[in-house]
Amino acid sequence: MSGSLVIAGLGPGAEAMVTPEVRAALEQASDVIGYIPYVARIAPREGLRLHPSDNRVETERARHALQLASEGAQVVVVSSGDPGVFAMAAAVFEAAEQGPRAWLDLDIRVLPGISAMFAAAAAAGAPLGHDFCAINLSDNLKPFELIRRRIALAIEADFVTAFYNPRSLARPHQFAEALALMQDLAGPERLILFARAVSTPQQQLRVVALKDARPEMADMRSLVILGSSRTREAGRWLYTPRRV
Amino acid sequence: MSGSLVIAGLGPGAEAMVTPEVRAALEQASDVIGYIPYVARIAPREGLRLHPSDNRVETERARHALQLASEGAQVVVVSSGDPGVFAMAAAVFEAAEQGPRAWLDLDIRVLPGISAMFAAAAAAGAPLGHDFCAINLSDNLKPFELIRRRIALAIEADFVTAFYNPRSLARPHQFAEALALMQDLAGPERLILFARAVSTPQQQLRVVALKDARPEMADMRSLVILGSSRTREAGRWLYTPRRV
Repeated sequence: MSGSLVIAGLGPGAEAMVTPEVRAALEQASDVIGYIPYVARIAPREGLRLHPSDNRVETERARHALQLASEGAQVVVVSSGDPGVFAMAAAVFEAAEQGPRAWLDLDIRVLPGISAMFAAAAAAGAPLGHDFCAINLSDNLKPFELIRRRIALAIEADFVTAFYNPRSLARPHQFAEALALMQDLAGPERLILFARAVSTPQQQLRVVALKDARPEMADMRSLVILGSSRTREAGRWLYTPRRV
Repeated sequence: MSGSLVIAGLGPGAEAMVTPEVRAALEQASDVIGYIPYVARIAPREGLRLHPSDNRVETERARHALQLASEGAQVVVVSSGDPGVFAMAAAVFEAAEQGPRAWLDLDIRVLPGISAMFAAAAAAGAPLGHDFCAINLSDNLKPFELIRRRIALAIEADFVTAFYNPRSLARPHQFAEALALMQDLAGPERLILFARAVSTPQQQLRVVALKDARPEMADMRSLVILGSSRTREAGRWLYTPRRV
């Protein structure tokens, strides 16, 4: 049997959000590779090797997956959310392009998952109901100056903006800087959603005006959505009308 | 039994991309409401009323759903893709806010789905692997001038950009205009993906440089993704590296 490599999205946390095609791929797998907490979601069974690895080793993990698939294994690389959004799919194609030519010819499939921003939006109402963008606030892979520039242009375009990886222990001050920039450019009354551990029993949602937003409202498990100028509250719901 | 209203995403087309929580909601439903081709995806069964309706009647459809739920029905409004992305969730909250106060207090849940842009990206590789935005090219609900402005700012920010509803019979010339603007601002070599009927047996993917892109490459069933300056091809894959 020749090897294969599936890059699968597990969704934001709830098992009821894992698609049947991802579930089927996991049932066929000989090897599951991913960041420790995502691999921890996979039930062990005979004949399945689990390869949990630490954060920030995406390239090594991608090479390992490609190597195993090239040796004949049925490999599934698991990401949380959607694997194409600030996750493992791009890392695998980078590694495949830089590795032996045969790696690009492997049987590779990407299986989409429910991305954190859609689960957060759904829990809060429909804040992404109009044109929107998604920005990764981690500056591990890009300069913070580019992040500032993108925030400014997103506000100028009046996009709703979803922020992934807003805050980590390694860079606590940057989200404060990003938030100050938003307050400056979008004004004190603009609504912002802090969504934490979406779809899990620990889920917390909080909607505030920018003037009341504090950096501590976000942590490593948070997804933050800054509304457009039209985003509004109705009862307990946050939504962005379809009309401008 | 008191009524409830679920706004559910059916994903882009493949049944294997429908999440278990959406499937469970459909099994509990007394009434399913939506655009004709989406309701056609729901298997009839005893005790289930299907309410297919035409395109462009989103507000009437939302009111109908809220009314039925307020009368005690278990209503599921179905959208393709994710219901929060250019789909029914925002329409329901608009109608709920404008309707009787009791409508906002109904038991409402939004269940996310696999959005067309993530399914298209997954089929092509990982073009959304870096910061990105999503723009609805339909000008039914916003002026085309705003669309032009957002395209220009998205290219200035070097976002990857997903375009929903690029082209319809009613407005064939606008996508040509949008494409000309992209060619002007992003240059002739920038890569663009035309993805049609993603995840269905009719799926077609085509990646070309902007200089070779033609308006006719998109139709009503297409999702178009314009790469950032970093988006590249590797073998048969299209992806955007995580680093800038």
